[in-house]
Amino acid sequence: MSVELSGLSTTEVVGKIRSGEISSEELVRACLDRIEKRESTIHAWTFLDPKLAIVQAQQCDTSEARSPLHGVPVGIKDQFDTADMPTAYGSPIYEGHQPGADAGSVARLREAGAVILGKTKLTEFALYHPTDTTNPLDPARSPGGSSSGSAAAVADFMVPVATGTQTVGSIIRPASYCGIFGYKPTFGSISRSGVLPLCASLDHVGLFARTVEDLELFTKVITGTHPHHPSMRTAQPTDFDLRHPDDLERPRIAFVKTPQWPELDVSIRTRLEKAAAQLGEDGAEVHEISLPGKFGGLVEAQNTILEVELSCALSYEFENYPDRLSDLLYGVIEQGRSVGMDKYFEARKLAAECRWESSALFRDHDVLLAPSVRGEAPVGLGSTGDPLFCQMWTLLGLPCVSLPGIQGPGGLPLGAQIIGPMHKDGLALSVAGWASRRLCRLP
Amino acid sequence: MSVELSGLSTTEVVGKIRSGEISSEELVRACLDRIEKRESTIHAWTFLDPKLAIVQAQQCDTSEARSPLHGVPVGIKDQFDTADMPTAYGSPIYEGHQPGADAGSVARLREAGAVILGKTKLTEFALYHPTDTTNPLDPARSPGGSSSGSAAAVADFMVPVATGTQTVGSIIRPASYCGIFGYKPTFGSISRSGVLPLCASLDHVGLFARTVEDLELFTKVITGTHPHHPSMRTAQPTDFDLRHPDDLERPRIAFVKTPQWPELDVSIRTRLEKAAAQLGEDGAEVHEISLPGKFGGLVEAQNTILEVELSCALSYEFENYPDRLSDLLYGVIEQGRSVGMDKYFEARKLAAECRWESSALFRDHDVLLAPSVRGEAPVGLGSTGDPLFCQMWTLLGLPCVSLPGIQGPGGLPLGAQIIGPMHKDGLALSVAGWASRRLCRLP
Repeated sequence: MSVELSGLSTTEVVGKIRSGEISSEELVRACLDRIEKRESTIHAWTFLDPKLAIVQAQQCDTSEARSPLHGVPVGIKDQFDTADMPTAYGSPIYEGHQPGADAGSVARLREAGAVILGKTKLTEFALYHPTDTTNPLDPARSPGGSSSGSAAAVADFMVPVATGTQTVGSIIRPASYCGIFGYKPTFGSISRSGVLPLCASLDHVGLFARTVEDLELFTKVITGTHPHHPSMRTAQPTDFDLRHPDDLERPRIAFVKTPQWPELDVSIRTRLEKAAAQLGEDGAEVHEISLPGKFGGLVEAQNTILEVELSCALSYEFENYPDRLSDLLYGVIEQGRSVGMDKYFEARKLAAECRWESSALFRDHDVLLAPSVRGEAPVGLGSTGDPLFCQMWTLLGLPCVSLPGIQGPGGLPLGAQIIGPMHKDGLALSVAGWASRRLCRLP
Repeated sequence: MSVELSGLSTTEVVGKIRSGEISSEELVRACLDRIEKRESTIHAWTFLDPKLAIVQAQQCDTSEARSPLHGVPVGIKDQFDTADMPTAYGSPIYEGHQPGADAGSVARLREAGAVILGKTKLTEFALYHPTDTTNPLDPARSPGGSSSGSAAAVADFMVPVATGTQTVGSIIRPASYCGIFGYKPTFGSISRSGVLPLCASLDHVGLFARTVEDLELFTKVITGTHPHHPSMRTAQPTDFDLRHPDDLERPRIAFVKTPQWPELDVSIRTRLEKAAAQLGEDGAEVHEISLPGKFGGLVEAQNTILEVELSCALSYEFENYPDRLSDLLYGVIEQGRSVGMDKYFEARKLAAECRWESSALFRDHDVLLAPSVRGEAPVGLGSTGDPLFCQMWTLLGLPCVSLPGIQGPGGLPLGAQIIGPMHKDGLALSVAGWASRRLCRLP
């Protein structure tokens, strides 16, 4: 019973809560039961206080519905400040740290009546040093990072939705490895306020869920008008249908092999090509396109911007707690400190040019389809995998949705990303949902 | 003696510290003496612990010089987190709040051996609700905001340099009213980490000083390579000369009247035109240019982006402490919550287009010259003045330097801004210094 209930999507469950068929408390208890059963294997949570979660649910059950997701639990990556739960940013330096306020996005979720279930594990300062979180599809493998706990918790049916951040590839990559949807919105469209800043030019706040409808519903609540607004209070979940373009029956998809394509193993390339062909057979207009030459420099530019901005952001920790930083992170910060501002400005200039030129990619196509990852989730927990195939899109700031449905050579999900034009997140989500339904039928 | 010593610029004083002529402790005591004498009139500081400042100075005096600004005091706007001083962000909600870490820029300054003198007053959450800080040039007038205390402290010779932030016009405006240099860098070029975020698309970290040389020196230390790097330790202050372009003897200045020009009083227009003409007589090539029509929409776009991003960032405070927000701020947040995402995205799209097109403005000109403010500092402390003439440039992200030297009809400084091309901050600073020296001779 617990598993089935905790495995429902938000859009499935809110109707049941609204009609009184189930209570928020029952739903939250189902999630907590699932966590109790599985957490010793998955290690998705860094803070979880079942009593606090149940109290929130009971408050929801006895108060008027405040939004379409009233009473629904959500997992919060431990990079987001929470006023009632400690927040350690994945670093021993901040063990037990209690922020004084909620992050903007968390405050919006609470205001809308969401139950803040707990805080999910992340790699050290959302970068490379891994957690002990395992991949629910194969606990001998990494769930990816940095939003390791959020991806694993959603994939393992512990919670329907969880927040994430992406500075390099921290949403798209774990979503791919765990076989769920990961959504990195248009740069800046979900508030980063109260989320530990690493790189102002790259940090994105996004979400994980098992359906694109859930992603859209949560995004609307976080970014939308006042959740107390009458239009929100009376809205039915069905009001929040994705905005399908008129021609979504025949989406125009550009299959982009990107300059990093040759780095993929042949077995991976074949599967992605097969998936693109399948979407064509299923009614999409699929064309292969290549990117302008200068886009080839974006991965290096992303690295430069990351190193410089990160090394400034973590100056205090670098100077005061060098022994409590991993060698890996210490090295990245030190490297960033040796990069001259001229090189940094050159990298930003290239990014600005390519951002501008990227709009031309969508002249004849609704969205792009590109690889998410090098392959299936890596075996062992020593690394969260390579973000290479995410870097360019993070720097461009375009909305990206990692879609499950493509199977890798080892039978695990491979992930591919649908990339939309700037600010057309609904379109990217719609096509990702459409494509995923079709690809799931592939062997 | 105190006044003279606290009135020296950093570039003047570091030579004396290095040669042993004065100690950091003497300098800091001179600043504290000046503050003691004047603070009951100016109200620039929200936290000042003289003992803590002197201990820092003594540590500098007994340790090896760590950078060219070793031992120099700096004021920190109380929007920047400091690990050893409370940080209240200009709001009663955060009275007594003690952050766990320094902001990235503060950490860099400490590492370089700067003395963190104290925290300066700002308007409520760096927006409109004023402080009791007065204008050192006429205490019956506002120093401008939101960086009120930083601008007043520097203008009153309490400290040579202070940090600021600009989301609307919070550096350029107070610098203009107080008759000092204010520097809003290229968007994103000084780390915002640990600075309370209000609007991710608009927040800039910058500086106030009485010379452009000080602005450049501090910027290099905050953004530069590892301050412990041998090249920094051995550098003489003179190594940090501004990078004058070869042709700075004849800078090419575009005088931009902006779409808001008609809002200026004739007495102000005349003075700005006279200043532009004076620069031409003094050797600059000055041409009047107008902006492309679509730039006329930038002020409204800036407002839209401000309201939406602010209303997300302050969601926690809005929901939990509505009674401790000023009516003014409460109204702005409420307004932001009624703006649809489509309007917000349109505003961002216009900004991206104009940012791209702004590079053409610099094809035939080194820099732009534009008004900073409507006029002299407003009488009374009820308002920090109108940021109208800053909004467009903040949204475009171009480097801006407010230069003193133009006198208003009431004998107080008027301020004008030199705007450079993206990432050419050194050029904007150089021309601002050049122009200010010439304008100071005007009656």
